[in-house]
Amino acid sequence: MKKQKISDAVIHRLPRYYRYLDDLFNKGVVRISSNSLGSKMDITASQIRQDLSCFGEFGQQGYGYNVAELRSEIGHILGIDSGHRLIVVGAGHLGHALLQNFDFQKLGFQIDSAFEVSPALIGTSIRNITIRSMDELEEYVTQYRPDVAVLTVPQHVAQSLADRLIALGIRGFWNFTNVELSTQEPGVFFENIHFADTLLTLSYRISRS
Amino acid sequence: MKKQKISDAVIHRLPRYYRYLDDLFNKGVVRISSNSLGSKMDITASQIRQDLSCFGEFGQQGYGYNVAELRSEIGHILGIDSGHRLIVVGAGHLGHALLQNFDFQKLGFQIDSAFEVSPALIGTSIRNITIRSMDELEEYVTQYRPDVAVLTVPQHVAQSLADRLIALGIRGFWNFTNVELSTQEPGVFFENIHFADTLLTLSYRISRS
Repeated sequence: MKKQKISDAVIHRLPRYYRYLDDLFNKGVVRISSNSLGSKMDITASQIRQDLSCFGEFGQQGYGYNVAELRSEIGHILGIDSGHRLIVVGAGHLGHALLQNFDFQKLGFQIDSAFEVSPALIGTSIRNITIRSMDELEEYVTQYRPDVAVLTVPQHVAQSLADRLIALGIRGFWNFTNVELSTQEPGVFFENIHFADTLLTLSYRISRS
Repeated sequence: MKKQKISDAVIHRLPRYYRYLDDLFNKGVVRISSNSLGSKMDITASQIRQDLSCFGEFGQQGYGYNVAELRSEIGHILGIDSGHRLIVVGAGHLGHALLQNFDFQKLGFQIDSAFEVSPALIGTSIRNITIRSMDELEEYVTQYRPDVAVLTVPQHVAQSLADRLIALGIRGFWNFTNVELSTQEPGVFFENIHFADTLLTLSYRISRS
């Protein structure tokens, strides 16, 4: 694998490649040209070749890509086989929806546990994940060392909770709080989900059509 | 306003511009240079100037951008002042979370109503929005003509429900079902939310750090 600085734009396209390849794989498609893949994904074939060249040599002139192989290679690049373990912090409606419906395992994430402050929810379970009291957070994370926290808590506690979790060794945040989290700690990553951005994109399209 | 084909990349950056400018505006910042805005957003100043030039003339050499003005201009481009009205279809945990916490109004969307099949939820209300039976969908949409549907329903009903809603005149779908929806109907837009993409981006970053 070449060592080079990969741009954010390329990194953000990788999951899309994986999604499309996974879909083709599940449909039993064996190979695909960069042209066909590009036309499905609404990007150019040369963009695909350029993106993938950041990570090595893929595909074969005149043959295209082997779908199963490329899917597995991109999955590997994305760390799907890294055995990440996560906790869900906040089991209100959004946390509940993710715990109940989101297929973490398919993306290589194991859900370790969930935490919540509401007494009505503590002790209940969703798809076999028991919801614990937030008071157990320190002890649990220190003992079991998950990598990632899904944050679905109210905005006013988001940053302080992130700071607590970073001090305990959490390195990745899947952040649904709509607060732009930050830290001085190196090697900690935030994926801030901004629902508003996609609704505004939709607003743009229907306003101009 | 110049008439030209605006690329998807530019369209996807517009809501981010709006979000940063709105934040600056709320903090009382009066003006900002393209350099400072770029460094906050982790893009180049020339990218900003190029993006904005698709929509007209903004800012002033040596002065920068007036935050309030640019925020309002970009809001206008995004259609925030178009008076869009939406319905939420599916009031399970995710629909409930959006109805309860998401600030639709701030983005110029008025929530008209919500629909659900579960008898336990029909007739209840969330932040003054009454949840109606899915059986009332046709009559309601025909009568009140909302523009947009938020889809938070199970996957197996997503496409057929979208088809029903398109036939009734819905033109925009904020689609949380993780099903790639499509239609032959012109002038209908889907924003498909793929939670998995952002979790995989996070996986990539922590796997490589």
